[in-house]
Amino acid sequence: MISTMVQRIREVLVFLFLALVSKANGVKPIFSWGVGLPFEEAAGEAYCLSWRLAVETNNVRGWRTVPTKCLCHIENYMIGGQYTRDVELIVEQIMSYANGILLSGDGMDAWIFDVDDTCISNLLYYKGKRYGCDPYDSVAFKAWAIKGGCPAIPAVQQVFVTLVEMGFKVFLVTGRDEETLGLPTTQNLHDQGFVGYERLVLRTIANKGQSAVTYKSGVRKQIEGEGYRIWGNVGDQWTDLQGDCLGNRTFKIPNPMYFVP
Amino acid sequence: MISTMVQRIREVLVFLFLALVSKANGVKPIFSWGVGLPFEEAAGEAYCLSWRLAVETNNVRGWRTVPTKCLCHIENYMIGGQYTRDVELIVEQIMSYANGILLSGDGMDAWIFDVDDTCISNLLYYKGKRYGCDPYDSVAFKAWAIKGGCPAIPAVQQVFVTLVEMGFKVFLVTGRDEETLGLPTTQNLHDQGFVGYERLVLRTIANKGQSAVTYKSGVRKQIEGEGYRIWGNVGDQWTDLQGDCLGNRTFKIPNPMYFVP
Repeated sequence: MISTMVQRIREVLVFLFLALVSKANGVKPIFSWGVGLPFEEAAGEAYCLSWRLAVETNNVRGWRTVPTKCLCHIENYMIGGQYTRDVELIVEQIMSYANGILLSGDGMDAWIFDVDDTCISNLLYYKGKRYGCDPYDSVAFKAWAIKGGCPAIPAVQQVFVTLVEMGFKVFLVTGRDEETLGLPTTQNLHDQGFVGYERLVLRTIANKGQSAVTYKSGVRKQIEGEGYRIWGNVGDQWTDLQGDCLGNRTFKIPNPMYFVP
Repeated sequence: MISTMVQRIREVLVFLFLALVSKANGVKPIFSWGVGLPFEEAAGEAYCLSWRLAVETNNVRGWRTVPTKCLCHIENYMIGGQYTRDVELIVEQIMSYANGILLSGDGMDAWIFDVDDTCISNLLYYKGKRYGCDPYDSVAFKAWAIKGGCPAIPAVQQVFVTLVEMGFKVFLVTGRDEETLGLPTTQNLHDQGFVGYERLVLRTIANKGQSAVTYKSGVRKQIEGEGYRIWGNVGDQWTDLQGDCLGNRTFKIPNPMYFVP
């Protein structure tokens, strides 16, 4: 609660500062679109809003990079506060849904979370990749992930803890490679307060080359095969939320920076 | 093309007018959020952005009314140009996907469209219902629908015509009641340029009381049972795009005004 308040205060201050700067020097305010911007920029901003909505609703698929003209839009979205608010509203929905579930008490009520940009954030890495305007770089990403320094996404970490406390068995399911990233990922999650989960499932040699939908569907099928009931399934990619054994309800965390096929 | 240009020019003029008015009189510009607005209003606008994104991504479900504080946000979104742009970008995606399909030539390549707020618009009706801030009023809606005066959503009408010309068999599937709304709906669609479709499917007594997902899944199962291949499925409600026989790809048209259970 306090960390949320501190964050809010910080946002307000940044906000006021930008308002002052933009009024005083005629610098364009990063929070506005439309009025105050030259027409071309307003049109560009409107396009990026459409593009981001289309990505989030799974209307645009298989895209490789963020359109270059949307770099500023995505940067503002990710670090200007709106992304954080969007995640918080989803987490409220998760809590409201979870509170309505009567747990069976047999320890078989399950919840699934994706890892990258669901539990822990790669925003710092993607900042160096122009928020996804640069193409995917598997070598650089692996070097980043192996350091184990991804910060938690605070609201998701909070709901994770709450669900564990409520008695849900939480499964973390990631496309990360077990052999090379198993240890740093486990450590990273632990360091960021993801403690008490039932299982962390990573991609093994058996899953190599599988699409995300095929691999994650297989994992969920296995979990259901063990008798678990999947109540919720949370991910930042539609490929986390499509396929088989989806769970009773899915929740899409925003991510306009990359698309996992 | 010309109508799109006229619309664009109209938007630009409204836009410039608002920019002038807001600069001259200190009236708050309806297109901006954040800087320039008092903090409470900016926070409200940010909340409504989160709420609308959560609705479009199916993270918020079963909602009955638009939050009252989002009335202005939804109004600006629906009539200020962004909704139209969002639909146009989705239609571009539909065309790009459709152009990549090799039709079999056996006349069994199908496409599904929902009707209300996918093909034809109820925006004029919902304007009188505070863009969804008022609860659903089945009597008033039926009185509106029976008049058969819903205008086409231009970009969707264009892609509909193109798909028919390409050789897709288009099925229009609606939750509207066949007995009372069959004739006015057929006439309304015809008047608005929805001509040449394969079949208009409405809700009969047999489907009464079924949820939208159950009813529409049944219809699609029937269509596939006849040997059709459903390539695309376009709707403004997630209940159009969930369930069985979804088709090879789904497209979500924005609709922040109401939720169909």
